[in-house]
Amino acid sequence: MNYKMIRYTLGWLLLFETAFFLIPLLTGIIYTEKATLSFLWSMLISGAVGALFVIKKPKDTALYAKEGFLIVALSWISLSIFGSLPFMFSGVTKSFVDALFETSSGFTTTGASIFGQNNPVDMLPKCILMWRSFTHWVGGMGVLVFVMAFLPLGGAHNINIMKAESPGPSVSKLVPRVKTTALILYVIYFALTLIQFILLLFGGIGVFESLNIAFATAGTGGFGMHGDSFASMPSYVQIVTCVFMLLFSINFGSYYLAIRGKFKDAFNTEIKVFIVIVLAAIALITADTLISDVFSGFGEALKHSSFTVASIISTTGFASADFNLWNNLSKTIIVMLMFVGACAGSTGGGIKVSRIIILVKGMFRELKMSIHPRQVKKISIDKRKVDHEVVRSVNAYIICFIVVFAISSLCLSFEETDLVTNFTAVTAAMNNIGPGLSGVGPMESFAGFTPFSKLVLTFDMLAGRLELFPMLILFTPQTYKKQ
Amino acid sequence: MNYKMIRYTLGWLLLFETAFFLIPLLTGIIYTEKATLSFLWSMLISGAVGALFVIKKPKDTALYAKEGFLIVALSWISLSIFGSLPFMFSGVTKSFVDALFETSSGFTTTGASIFGQNNPVDMLPKCILMWRSFTHWVGGMGVLVFVMAFLPLGGAHNINIMKAESPGPSVSKLVPRVKTTALILYVIYFALTLIQFILLLFGGIGVFESLNIAFATAGTGGFGMHGDSFASMPSYVQIVTCVFMLLFSINFGSYYLAIRGKFKDAFNTEIKVFIVIVLAAIALITADTLISDVFSGFGEALKHSSFTVASIISTTGFASADFNLWNNLSKTIIVMLMFVGACAGSTGGGIKVSRIIILVKGMFRELKMSIHPRQVKKISIDKRKVDHEVVRSVNAYIICFIVVFAISSLCLSFEETDLVTNFTAVTAAMNNIGPGLSGVGPMESFAGFTPFSKLVLTFDMLAGRLELFPMLILFTPQTYKKQ
Repeated sequence: MNYKMIRYTLGWLLLFETAFFLIPLLTGIIYTEKATLSFLWSMLISGAVGALFVIKKPKDTALYAKEGFLIVALSWISLSIFGSLPFMFSGVTKSFVDALFETSSGFTTTGASIFGQNNPVDMLPKCILMWRSFTHWVGGMGVLVFVMAFLPLGGAHNINIMKAESPGPSVSKLVPRVKTTALILYVIYFALTLIQFILLLFGGIGVFESLNIAFATAGTGGFGMHGDSFASMPSYVQIVTCVFMLLFSINFGSYYLAIRGKFKDAFNTEIKVFIVIVLAAIALITADTLISDVFSGFGEALKHSSFTVASIISTTGFASADFNLWNNLSKTIIVMLMFVGACAGSTGGGIKVSRIIILVKGMFRELKMSIHPRQVKKISIDKRKVDHEVVRSVNAYIICFIVVFAISSLCLSFEETDLVTNFTAVTAAMNNIGPGLSGVGPMESFAGFTPFSKLVLTFDMLAGRLELFPMLILFTPQTYKKQ
Repeated sequence: MNYKMIRYTLGWLLLFETAFFLIPLLTGIIYTEKATLSFLWSMLISGAVGALFVIKKPKDTALYAKEGFLIVALSWISLSIFGSLPFMFSGVTKSFVDALFETSSGFTTTGASIFGQNNPVDMLPKCILMWRSFTHWVGGMGVLVFVMAFLPLGGAHNINIMKAESPGPSVSKLVPRVKTTALILYVIYFALTLIQFILLLFGGIGVFESLNIAFATAGTGGFGMHGDSFASMPSYVQIVTCVFMLLFSINFGSYYLAIRGKFKDAFNTEIKVFIVIVLAAIALITADTLISDVFSGFGEALKHSSFTVASIISTTGFASADFNLWNNLSKTIIVMLMFVGACAGSTGGGIKVSRIIILVKGMFRELKMSIHPRQVKKISIDKRKVDHEVVRSVNAYIICFIVVFAISSLCLSFEETDLVTNFTAVTAAMNNIGPGLSGVGPMESFAGFTPFSKLVLTFDMLAGRLELFPMLILFTPQTYKKQ
């Protein structure tokens, strides 16, 4: 194990985080807030630790699969730990676990918050609000690939980091070089965020809120700035955000292909299936909420259904209405969308549409094969055969998902909340959504859980964002054995 | 497709069902009940249809994989349809869907009942009660293998039927001939039932109840004869039943090996894991119910915890206490046990312990392989390598399970019941348990669902009992295409 290289990479990551703190620091200075100082202290600490870690550059810079997974897991944990310092220093929470939960929720783009009824989010300083939203934006595209692209290293093994950090069953390089691929993706990310920000400026909610919403939407995060999330936002802001939640759910590679004129390749099976799921869910929920008189008119029902579907399938977690009060049918669809998630290669979480496609195609292949045992066929997507390795890794992912889900649910069952609360809390954490149902519904918060449950959910959020393997490998004793 | 052979087999099956009706008929005659006649009418109908189907023996008796799956699916549907006749004729229910639900629940050894508050099970005629319990006994070991063993056919392809009908990821023949293997298993089944019946006779509940309980336990069915299931039964009866529920959850092949002195082979990994799960669950639930003051003393807590764990993991579904009122921890464990289920090759349902072992071992293999990508290793159980085909079919089973589960939950969400009711109703149906939580808790019934939901749950019970593939293949258009 190349521990020196792990230390060195973590050091650089912390230096980057020190730079990230400048954004909320600047916000605090502009609004002359007392909490500004907390970012200065945090910068000192993360900067010092980071500097200490990078003083000595390791001779051997090689990173293999094992180190790749470990670096990714440790990076995200370190980011969360150091990122939670401002929450402590500013005094908005006294509990380290709460601060860690909030920061992990930010970086993993979950959006589940410990700020609720007793400690309302509306009362938070603007610099803290900005830090929360900015963690979403940093976490959305993944920070490690970004850091690695800038490090003065060989870079030959960066693909292992990219594989571990970016969402979806397989990583396809858009261009031969990993660094250039990363750069293209970040430019698209930046451009889309900017467009949304500019469009939001016309919504009459001011620069500060527009920027926060753009950051939180781009990362498909979901931290809101109000206790009622998006319920009291102007319709225009709701609609713009709804559209961009969907845009950020789509594989960024497709945007690159579209820009280069390859529309046919860009509009792939995953996007088609994604659109079908979104439209079907919107239609069903609109009908259901209309029939059950949740909304007075078709327009209202359509708007809130669309917003909710976009918010859940993109795993953002904003809420324009309290869907916890809707009918069973709508709630069941919402829970199912939570598991589906966005497209691979987007900033969204969940199991991912492409994995669902592979699983369902695999199921039909198995059914066919039990009728005609001698016909062994590979499944194919977009006229390309899906590699046996990919199918196997998707199956492994699902089994890991079930195991982590079951153990987490068992851990949360020590709570005195109801089963739906516990079940959807784990669902919302693992799929990086934010709100669940019942006690963790969109108008509630995660404040009421015990520190133990919050740590379990923090693990779930990180495991979900990093697609399970890095976090599981971190806790496998075998990893540290010499071969 | 060999339709003639399918018709012929179904015919014989109906003739066997006609014979099965003799048991409740005899019961009705002994207790001189009015409902006895309904069995006579049912015998006439099933006998006539059966005779019509078997008049002409097909020349080509070959059964391939496809026909095997179809025959199994159609047999169980036919059994349920004709088995529901006495419920209609006797007037205990006027709804065909209710009668079909109850009979499928019987044959699939689920034990979910439509007889509840408004139509209490305590008021049913004894011959109807006997028919309910007897369907469990018939369904437990599977009837088709039994029928095929007696049919004057070549029998070369019976292994396809056996594969499709018997529970677990793979079928191992105890002896070279399928017919002899089947015979050995039925003898063990019969002997264990007899022993339990004799032991129950000492419980002071009379011959009739003892026989009914023995039938329902042997099949791991769970239809009770009282509205409170097992709550008011003498402790002795509860303890005997608890032990036998566990005994019927164990691979019958292991009993054969034990009888032949091969104790080491008999006590395999699956049984060891099963015992560990059972003991851990009992310990946790005993502690949880004691701490939360559900029971006054350790003895009571231990008894009811053991009974509940045995009832749920064996997928029987008897209840000695209303576990719906227990704490979250206990309820979460119960829901998890519902999915685990019994050992392969037993009469129990669920996903099966051996599948769980294969899945978890497969997960660890994948984790190891992502650390050391070049080491490709097969997983092994009991020092034997698990075939790649078996691992793949287990993965396929889990995906099918998830898909059927999701679609069923969506269908049930049109109900106005709560999410826990719907979710555990599907869980209880697919794993052939019987009771769930909340609205379908052990002291409740399935009477309140709409006919649509009941049909969905009937499908789930059959799909669960036949391990998904036969029922899915029945509804796949591809099955009927000429190759």
